[in-house]
This record gives sequence, C-alpha cells and structure tokens, in this order.
Amino acid sequence: MTNPVQRAIAAHEQRFLAELIEACRIPSVSGDAQALQTMADWTLARLQRLGAQTALWPTTDGPPVVWAEIGAGPRSLTSYSHYDVQPADPLELWHSPAFEPTVRDGKLFARGVADDKGDLLSRIHAVEIYQALYGDLPLRFKFFVEGEEEVGSPHLAPVAAAHADSIRADGCLWESGGFDSQERYTLYLGVKGIQYVELSARGATSDLHSAYGAIAPNPAWRLVQALNTLKAPDDTILIDDFAAHVRPITPLEEAYLDRIPFEGEAMKARWGIPAFINDIANRQALQRFLYAPTCTICGLRAGFIEEGQKTVLPSLATVKLDFRLVPDLTPELVLRLLREHLDRRGYQDIHIRPMSALAPSRAHPEAAIVQAVTASVAAVYGHDPVIYPSHGGSGPLYALGEGLGVDAVTVGVGYPGVNMHAPNENIRLADYFKQIEFLVDLFRRFGTAAA
Amino acid sequence: MTNPVQRAIAAHEQRFLAELIEACRIPSVSGDAQALQTMADWTLARLQRLGAQTALWPTTDGPPVVWAEIGAGPRSLTSYSHYDVQPADPLELWHSPAFEPTVRDGKLFARGVADDKGDLLSRIHAVEIYQALYGDLPLRFKFFVEGEEEVGSPHLAPVAAAHADSIRADGCLWESGGFDSQERYTLYLGVKGIQYVELSARGATSDLHSAYGAIAPNPAWRLVQALNTLKAPDDTILIDDFAAHVRPITPLEEAYLDRIPFEGEAMKARWGIPAFINDIANRQALQRFLYAPTCTICGLRAGFIEEGQKTVLPSLATVKLDFRLVPDLTPELVLRLLREHLDRRGYQDIHIRPMSALAPSRAHPEAAIVQAVTASVAAVYGHDPVIYPSHGGSGPLYALGEGLGVDAVTVGVGYPGVNMHAPNENIRLADYFKQIEFLVDLFRRFGTAAA
Repeated sequence: MTNPVQRAIAAHEQRFLAELIEACRIPSVSGDAQALQTMADWTLARLQRLGAQTALWPTTDGPPVVWAEIGAGPRSLTSYSHYDVQPADPLELWHSPAFEPTVRDGKLFARGVADDKGDLLSRIHAVEIYQALYGDLPLRFKFFVEGEEEVGSPHLAPVAAAHADSIRADGCLWESGGFDSQERYTLYLGVKGIQYVELSARGATSDLHSAYGAIAPNPAWRLVQALNTLKAPDDTILIDDFAAHVRPITPLEEAYLDRIPFEGEAMKARWGIPAFINDIANRQALQRFLYAPTCTICGLRAGFIEEGQKTVLPSLATVKLDFRLVPDLTPELVLRLLREHLDRRGYQDIHIRPMSALAPSRAHPEAAIVQAVTASVAAVYGHDPVIYPSHGGSGPLYALGEGLGVDAVTVGVGYPGVNMHAPNENIRLADYFKQIEFLVDLFRRFGTAAA
Repeated sequence: MTNPVQRAIAAHEQRFLAELIEACRIPSVSGDAQALQTMADWTLARLQRLGAQTALWPTTDGPPVVWAEIGAGPRSLTSYSHYDVQPADPLELWHSPAFEPTVRDGKLFARGVADDKGDLLSRIHAVEIYQALYGDLPLRFKFFVEGEEEVGSPHLAPVAAAHADSIRADGCLWESGGFDSQERYTLYLGVKGIQYVELSARGATSDLHSAYGAIAPNPAWRLVQALNTLKAPDDTILIDDFAAHVRPITPLEEAYLDRIPFEGEAMKARWGIPAFINDIANRQALQRFLYAPTCTICGLRAGFIEEGQKTVLPSLATVKLDFRLVPDLTPELVLRLLREHLDRRGYQDIHIRPMSALAPSRAHPEAAIVQAVTASVAAVYGHDPVIYPSHGGSGPLYALGEGLGVDAVTVGVGYPGVNMHAPNENIRLADYFKQIEFLVDLFRRFGTAAA
C-alpha cells in the first residue's frame, strides 16, 4: 500500500541516494577552507538546479552562508542547516572510510551524513518531489545553509541580523531532529542559551610557600568564597535579579512535559548516581532540565593539581562556569548581573572573562508551524510526535528563531544510533525517504492552511 | 686578640675543614640506599673516634638513625641533625660539582654542607675542642643523626618513641640555625605542625555534558560548599572546636615578638601584594605567621583545567589543604575535628585523604637551654640573638622536642645565602668555626650551671 508521494520518492530513490553520497564525499571539515568552499559551491549549484533564487552571503573570515528561496504563497518557511562537518578522527575506528560513503544494512555511513547533509538534501529532494507531483511550492521556502556550525557559528548572528528581512518567515525548520530510542518522532521547540565564563582571582605575583598562608592572600579561598555567593547548597542560583528574568512556564508547556517519556531511572543508573539534585522526582528533573537556568562549574584550577602533595600557596585560581540560559536571560544580561552581584559583595577583584555566548530561543508551543509539523508527523509517521517545548542543551537557534520573532522546530533524518561527531556516523535510508514524504506533506499543509 | 678556644680551633682548622669536605664528598642523597649507608657508617665511625658510646637504630625500610652519647654530668643535651641531603639537580647550575666540595671566597660549596653536614660536624668538632681544652664534657651530649629528613622523616616519631628514655634530655639543639639577613644570630624555639589532606567529592561515574548541570550533582559545587564551611572570608577557621585547642600566646612570647625585626613592607613588595590578609599591620602579621593555625588551599582541581572552554560537568573535584598547626592542635585531632565538622553538616560524602602530618612543638621561652643558648650567643657572637618563639614553617621537632617534654632550640652554621635545596649550597667558613666556639661555650655554660 503506497501513496503517490511514496511512489514518486521510490522512483527517484537511487538518484537521491547518489546525490547524498556525492555531497558526503566532499570532506567539508571545519577549518578546511578549500573543502568548505567546494561544498558551498556544490550546495549553491544544487539549489540553483532546483530553480531557486540563490545568493552567497560572505562572512568576515569564514566560509559563506548559502542562501536560496523558492516557491510562492502567503506563507514562508525557513530551513536552517549546515554544510560543514566534524573532523573524522579517529580514522581507525571507521568500518568504511569517512568520506567514501558506504551503504550497509540499510544505512548510509559517512562523516556528515546525519550532521547535517542528510537534513539538507532531504529538504532539497522534498522540494523536487513536491514540484514533480503538484507543481510550484505553495509557500516561500528559504534555505539558510551555513558553514560554521561545528565551530560554534561565530558569524551566524551578524549574518542573520544583516539579512533579517530576507530570513524572517512564518516558521523555521531547524536541523538535527528525528527519532528517539523508542522510535518516536521527536520535536524540539527551543534550546537553552549559554554564557560560558572564566572567573579568576589573583594573589601574590608567584606561588608562595604555604607556610605564608597565615598572612598572604589566597586567591583559591577568594574564589571559593565568591563562588559561594552564586549558588545555594539547594542549587538555587543566588545572583541578584537573576531569577526575576526567568520566563515562567505556562500550563500548555507543563502539559507537554507531562506527555514526555522521560527515562529518569535509566539516566541515573547510566550516570551511577543515586539521585538527581535535591533528590527531585523524574517529572521535576525533566522540567529543570528543560526550563531551569544553570550555573555549572565545568572546571576548577588553582595551585598544585598533580597527584601527591606540595606545600604551595597559589598565585592564581580560576573557575570555568557554564550558565545555561532560558528566556529571558540573555548572555549580555547575565554578564552584567554577575558583575554587579560580585561588585556589590566586594569582589571587584574577581576577573570575568566572557567566552561562548548564545541566547535562548523557544517557539510558542501552539505556533502555526508547530501545529503543522505535529499534524504532518501524525499523518506520515503514524503517531503523534513527542514534543519537547525546549531542549536542555544549547544551540544557535536564536539567530533565526526568537531573535527574528520566528517559531522554530527541529526536524530531521536522525535516530539515536547516528554516531554524531563520532566514527561510523550514519543514517537509516528508510528514515531519509520517510523524511522527504513528511516534508512534502508539511509543504502542502503549512503552505495551503489559512494564514 | 684571641682566646684559648679560638686558638685551639685555629690549630685544628685545616683538619676540621678536611673532615667536613670528606663528609660532603659522600653523595648521601635521599633514596640512594648505598650512599646513605656509607654516610651512616662514616658518621658512626667518626662518633666512635670521638670516644662516644654509639648505636645504629634501624628503621623498618629506611636508613638507620646514628646514635651516640658522650660526656657526664648532671645535665644532658640532645643534638638533632641528619646525614641525608637533597638531590643536586639541576647539576648545570653548580659552579663546582655538588659532591666535589670547593672553597671559594671564604665559603665551602657542596651539596649538604649547610643542610645538614655542617651542623653535625661543627658539633663533633666542638666536643673535640672542649675535650682538648678542658677534658671530659661536663654534660651528657647525645647525637641523634637521622637519614630521612629530606623525605619528611617518616620514621622519626616511632624511633624517638622506641628510644624515648635514651633521647630525653634537659634540652635539645635542633638543626638549621644561624644568621639572618642583618647578620643577627637567630634562634627558633619551635615550629608549627602540619596536617596535609586531600578532600574529594564525587558525582557521576564519568564526566557528563554540562547541559545536565540542571539535574546531575556537581562535585565541584559540592566541594566549594563544603570548603566554605571551613573558613570565613575574614580568614577565621570555622571548624567546630578548632580554635579552642589553640594555646594562647603568653605575655613573654608577645615580648619576644615585639623585639623581632619583621620586614613586612619588604615582604609585601616582594610578593606583589598591597596588603596582608585583612590588611593587618606588620606586628599582627608577624604574630599570625608564628602563632596562627592555617587552613590553606594548596591546590584545587575539577573538570576541564586547560586553556579555552569545554562544556563538561566534572565527575570528581579535589582540593589539597594544608593545615599548619600550633600547640595544642595535633594532626590526629585536626583530622577528627574536620571529619566531625563535615559530617555534622551533611558532608559525609566528602572523602578525606590524610597526607603529611607533623605535630607542632614549642620550647618554653624561659627554658634553661634557651637561657644558656641566649647567653652563649651574646658571649661569643657579641650580640643578643633574635629569638623567634616559634617558626611559621613546620618540621619534625616534636618527636625530640615537646613530644618528649624537651625544650629545643635551633642553632647552626647557616646564613641567608646558603642556597638551601638549591644549586651552589654553601656555608661561610668563618661561621663554621664561630659555631664551634659558641658550642664550646654552651657546653660549659649549660653543663656546669646549677641543675
């Protein structure tokens, strides 16, 4: 029992697979400027063959963003994906070479096939199928394909800001979606932001003998004391005015959470911990994971850090802190609140070095694109998607999402076995073709619904 | 103008120097079992030639203690010194080979000449001079010469306990004394003790992605919070019942402190700090340095400690803590108080790993041996000694000192330029011979005074 879309996809299957393999042969590893340019050119040409209007948007010192727009209609939809890939090492752990795409057991193995060339090509192929079956796309579909995702998207925000009017749309399809471990199609409606900082305290100009601990200032104690003002033992973040900026969770979001099959017991067993923070129950853990901002010590360093003992009084103490941010905590705001909090308590001497920063972003859980994607998942995959109203991790969603007032949702060709960033990265071919079918349904549903 | 003692020393000068050179030729570096045995044998033979009763006291798995006793009289006096030396590296920085003792500019250069073969030989030679001039020593002089001082004297306490009745005396001469930077002869009447510990907190069985900071326990935060219960920002140690064990300073000790020329301003300038802890004045800094127990973070380590950033939630956090102890805080007591303090606050999970431990020791500031040494310094060196009622550092004094109820004081052949533990270790030959003269005076003064 097949429908016309499935039959059309089946008719093109070999060509689509050959094209995906062609794209994965290009070793567009971050940092390899020439390979990245080759991949940008390949992507641009492929989108031109689709009949799209295209452009290359340069970045100041990185690979360009490939831009394309195709179709017409009352609604518009932006697709975010990226053409750069992770390095393939350790090469010896690959069962077939990373850049010689190989089909085995119904899977295509290649570096970048899941992250993120499969997502990109499935969207191109979906447009082709739609055109073949129904003619022109009934919406303006916009491809935003960057080449720096694997190095933190350093130019995404300025490029998005410079081209905001072109990019802004009635919805956005993000990358990296797919199935969970129970073969449930899963949607993420948002990500946390991040502000990574290094705090440091200084004492004497060089390490001293620890006998001087009675009289010489110790930056390690200073840092411990400053840190202690940031967080309570019950894990509450104590930074002045911080909590006031946390957008409250809505009953609708709570209802989504209630439906998520969160495997807290398995998680604790895997991590070897008896309990989550404060011994919270699974439902609360899920909510904290998705909705609570964090202030995490990622690294601590002072003085003698080797095995054994050394009687030394450190001259420097540093901590790496990772703030995961939820709306409406922006990186800039958190830096300001942190500085003011420390200053107010006399810790003007604690130096703050800002590092990675990304703003949080969430789609409205009842946004039109969310409803359309949900309905298309149900129609094509045969079950309601698991919907995460946000993600516990961070990503550059904000630049094309909440930063432009656009509701974004993750879709894609993935499953838990893709080996993201690892040897033997792969996708299941059946997932790839099903995703095309899903996208065709979505184009029609989202493009022809009342605006 | 010379006196008979000076003339006798001058008559033996070349032989004494040759013997000191002979001792320094033996490369009795800690860990070199054969060289240590050679040096123990040399020391034993030398003490036998002096006419002393001698013994080798074995240790379980280290070099033996060389023991000797000579003389007769109502009073007894123990000498502590050691025959092991620091390694000589970096060899290329020595101007003459470390184990080819060389005289230059009135100094003898050799590894171990200051630390501690000069002290040992000066005491042997002083006995000889006394015998030559006056006959039998008027006191029972006891040589305790260990071979493990440079590795923390691991067997000193058990050996001292096993031979307590032999060792106990009416006073003890410790090693490592001499002149300060202003050519003032300096006495130390005590040392701080030490208890070095490593505290550790554990979270998941391996590092996690920092996104899980919202729900997974973070041992770095746990450790910071535990540490924060140990010390107040004003540097007060908050461990329950800790302060109650700090022996109060006496008016007599305060008077000693008032006379010590403490160069606080130079110290701060050298360290590059604007102020001591809590901006205390120099007099208070001196008192804290000598009389306050400490709790010093020597090292902190958790998670990602390199340059840059990594979004990781550590599975382990450790701190190295150095407690400097004053009477009557013993290492055992501090370990117990620390454990109880943490347990009482719910930190049973914080593991305490005890490392180096030494008890504090102080002589009574008016002890007979202190008075005798002070008088002999004045008589021989021509000025009152600078007396430190304690030292800011730690040493194994307790085993032969307060642990046996004996008052101990540091004397020796040192000066600030000895390059202790460094290349070009040396002593000034004039200091060596003057020390012999001082010891001869002390033998007579201490041995013939009313008991």
